[in-house]
Amino acid sequence: MKIKLSALAEKLGLDHTGDDMEIAGVNTLEKAGPDEISFLVNPKYAHLLDSTRAGCVLTSGPYADRVARALVSANVYMDLAKVVNVFAVPQGCLSGGSEFAFIHHEARVDASATVYPFAFIGAGAIVGANSIIFPGCYVGENSVIGSDCQLYPNAVVMGGVILGDNVILQPGAVVGGDGYGYAQTPLGHMKIPQIGIVEVEDNVEIGANSTIDRAALDTTRIGRGTKIDNLVQIGHNVQVGQNCLIIGQVGIGGSSRVGDNVILAGQVGVADNADIGDGAMIGAQSGVSGKIEGGSRLAGSPVMPATTFLRAAGSCMPRLPELFRRVKALEKELKAVRKAAPKGSDHEQQ
Amino acid sequence: MKIKLSALAEKLGLDHTGDDMEIAGVNTLEKAGPDEISFLVNPKYAHLLDSTRAGCVLTSGPYADRVARALVSANVYMDLAKVVNVFAVPQGCLSGGSEFAFIHHEARVDASATVYPFAFIGAGAIVGANSIIFPGCYVGENSVIGSDCQLYPNAVVMGGVILGDNVILQPGAVVGGDGYGYAQTPLGHMKIPQIGIVEVEDNVEIGANSTIDRAALDTTRIGRGTKIDNLVQIGHNVQVGQNCLIIGQVGIGGSSRVGDNVILAGQVGVADNADIGDGAMIGAQSGVSGKIEGGSRLAGSPVMPATTFLRAAGSCMPRLPELFRRVKALEKELKAVRKAAPKGSDHEQQ
Amino acid sequence: MKIKLSALAEKLGLDHTGDDMEIAGVNTLEKAGPDEISFLVNPKYAHLLDSTRAGCVLTSGPYADRVARALVSANVYMDLAKVVNVFAVPQGCLSGGSEFAFIHHEARVDASATVYPFAFIGAGAIVGANSIIFPGCYVGENSVIGSDCQLYPNAVVMGGVILGDNVILQPGAVVGGDGYGYAQTPLGHMKIPQIGIVEVEDNVEIGANSTIDRAALDTTRIGRGTKIDNLVQIGHNVQVGQNCLIIGQVGIGGSSRVGDNVILAGQVGVADNADIGDGAMIGAQSGVSGKIEGGSRLAGSPVMPATTFLRAAGSCMPRLPELFRRVKALEKELKAVRKAAPKGSDHEQQ
Repeated sequence: MKIKLSALAEKLGLDHTGDDMEIAGVNTLEKAGPDEISFLVNPKYAHLLDSTRAGCVLTSGPYADRVARALVSANVYMDLAKVVNVFAVPQGCLSGGSEFAFIHHEARVDASATVYPFAFIGAGAIVGANSIIFPGCYVGENSVIGSDCQLYPNAVVMGGVILGDNVILQPGAVVGGDGYGYAQTPLGHMKIPQIGIVEVEDNVEIGANSTIDRAALDTTRIGRGTKIDNLVQIGHNVQVGQNCLIIGQVGIGGSSRVGDNVILAGQVGVADNADIGDGAMIGAQSGVSGKIEGGSRLAGSPVMPATTFLRAAGSCMPRLPELFRRVKALEKELKAVRKAAPKGSDHEQQ
Repeated sequence: MKIKLSALAEKLGLDHTGDDMEIAGVNTLEKAGPDEISFLVNPKYAHLLDSTRAGCVLTSGPYADRVARALVSANVYMDLAKVVNVFAVPQGCLSGGSEFAFIHHEARVDASATVYPFAFIGAGAIVGANSIIFPGCYVGENSVIGSDCQLYPNAVVMGGVILGDNVILQPGAVVGGDGYGYAQTPLGHMKIPQIGIVEVEDNVEIGANSTIDRAALDTTRIGRGTKIDNLVQIGHNVQVGQNCLIIGQVGIGGSSRVGDNVILAGQVGVADNADIGDGAMIGAQSGVSGKIEGGSRLAGSPVMPATTFLRAAGSCMPRLPELFRRVKALEKELKAVRKAAPKGSDHEQQ
Repeated sequence: MKIKLSALAEKLGLDHTGDDMEIAGVNTLEKAGPDEISFLVNPKYAHLLDSTRAGCVLTSGPYADRVARALVSANVYMDLAKVVNVFAVPQGCLSGGSEFAFIHHEARVDASATVYPFAFIGAGAIVGANSIIFPGCYVGENSVIGSDCQLYPNAVVMGGVILGDNVILQPGAVVGGDGYGYAQTPLGHMKIPQIGIVEVEDNVEIGANSTIDRAALDTTRIGRGTKIDNLVQIGHNVQVGQNCLIIGQVGIGGSSRVGDNVILAGQVGVADNADIGDGAMIGAQSGVSGKIEGGSRLAGSPVMPATTFLRAAGSCMPRLPELFRRVKALEKELKAVRKAAPKGSDHEQQ
């Protein structure tokens, strides 16, 4: 795939500086060759503009003059996504139905969908237009896969789960496994059958080997446009809002609510029944429970304001041994001072 | 599936209040319709009794009078499990052996078991009565799957592993992958082959994408009735007792021992060679090592008594910057006091 | 498999004490029978030498005299690895290509490789000599699997990924899933296609259900001899050096660099763009960001010197409530002292 810089600029509705060229790919500033386009967002890497061999650089106005050819953008990341899309070759090497897939005779797979060998589509399941089901995927009975979805290898969608359009399941993602629900009885933990479902709305992406449990009775929901990283666990009955970013290894306990545009950084743990308001940002490895105000910036376990956490854990914590020594010294000195003080003052105090 | 309230009450050995009705399902207080039964355990949600549309509510005596029809229980969660069981439709849409499964000719699969397409049963493996092996599962050579087990899609049981009866593996669970064992040599880390096995006792459930490593030489064991959530890692040689609850994303290091009835909350980390006594409860995200007394209530990393942790991390930690300021002020003030004090006292102290 | 002690000693280039015997297996000191060899490394377990029934013990010189027969080694773990190798039976029960595998006609699978039923090998993929591809594995288009690799059941290698020789993927490991990269736009998070690859060098092992993301544009790299435990997440563009040990449930954020011989203990989180120097050791559950000096011994979140962390978190943290009380008492006492002091001193101070 090659494209003229001028054509690329027109396609994206952008201007370019310098003369035209033919672009063969996109790469980092350090690795791009003369026939490739690169990009600069973070000013921290601006010095690489001097040494890059890239034929062209996608960047914002202020940097455009520093290279021979620039594609000038007001939202470099967004336009980078579009540029990469031009050169991206989708994963996979087959199309259409495979005779080696198992498609139940009561399933309905759109004629434009691709089902790879060793994929299993259960009774009553529906697979929408242009969706691609890679090898080893399981689509349980009565599940619905919308259009333009991609289920990468070994992704599992258990029975009755609903995926919207343009949903991506990375390899090994599991949607609709049983929630963790048991009744305590004299005979031990008795399983409460999990008869609810999961609804995953449009444009959601779920990372490799992440797990989203089906509700006990009603619906676990992942809101439109939310992006979930790898190895994330989402418990039964959880309601995640729209356009959230849930980073790797986060765990969200059962029946919690996560608002819209929430960011949970890596390895955050959210307790059962928590309620996180819209736009909250929670720092990595934090522990969240209870009600969190929308727009909060929190960190720590349990969470506190992120700025407080930075000082408490980053600055104070390593100095705790010293603080204990200082307090001990104070106690000793004060004792000495009091001992030396006139009798009257001592009496007064006690 | 529909059932009369009177019949349901009789089936469970419970009494009901109000007139009889036909129940078509079970749902939450908020979502249940007039033909459904709901339930109330937590007094916190008792106000929902006023607004629920549920035709009947499973609850304990004190709440029975607040609704038109109640199914009265002394253990609501246990009876809820039984009620849901009445309405639950099991996952899956096939039964019996599939011509698209691979069953080694030296494997023994009970005639009442179900093996889905694309499941693999190795040489010498045994699958017991009524067990269900979903698509993409792997049962290695000489493994034993008891009766009434469910191996959901893409669950992996490596060679030589033993599962008892009524064991559930959620999708993607891996039992019997190699333990993490290497010898340090001048040429780098040399793999120590892991030739032990895993024994999973009766009534154990293992969550989606959780991993239980085989022992280096002898046996990793998961005790009867223990329930393991999603994305949990259990290292080689670990001995987990009976009826434990191990919540999502817990990691247990090699050769550790976990007693009976232990609860490890989400994201807890247990170091290698730890020893956790019966009935201990460890709070979320805690870090455990060494010997833990039975019955302990611990939290923090490293762990301390849970009540101490609550005060130290929840209350004191955010006030650390303030504490440093206070100590600094004390030091300054004390210095001033000493400076102003009569000479004699100063000498005495030094 | 049985072997004479004398033959085993010769095979390993070691001496043995006591008379010869026939060894039928290897086991722990507690479980070994008279026809088995056991081993002792940790002096803590030396008392077991008195009670073991093992026919022979692999150990270092100082302990050799305490048992009837010893195989004497200067590196017991290394020689244990070799001993176990003698008795180890590899996983699996088939060899050669399977008619039930899907091997694309443009793929090249070495004649000595084994491809199990329900494995998928995509167009242009290469599988090297003696490599074994277990059921349910996916090898994407144009991927390269070196020689002597083992891809255990349901491991996934997405398109364009390169594995060196002697690489082991435990069950469910995913190499080459999309990195987590989105552009923020007024319409929500727009996916940046991840068109880079992953290179996994020789002798790397990747644990069950671990996930290694493909680079956004260039290459995510796992260096030669590095061993990765279960449920580890490695983000896009990460560069991991040689001979690292990355323990269970570690997460490494995008574009981070990990040097050679680094040890990351269980559940460590590494932020995006971190840079960890050679030989650093990071304690369990720590949080790492920024630049870490080679050879550091760190712990805590955020990290501090491990010895400091031990005192601060292990010793000081539980005593924080007490420290607050002590400081409060000091403030009260000092106030009393100042109140009782002669007027002059008070003035002087303010």
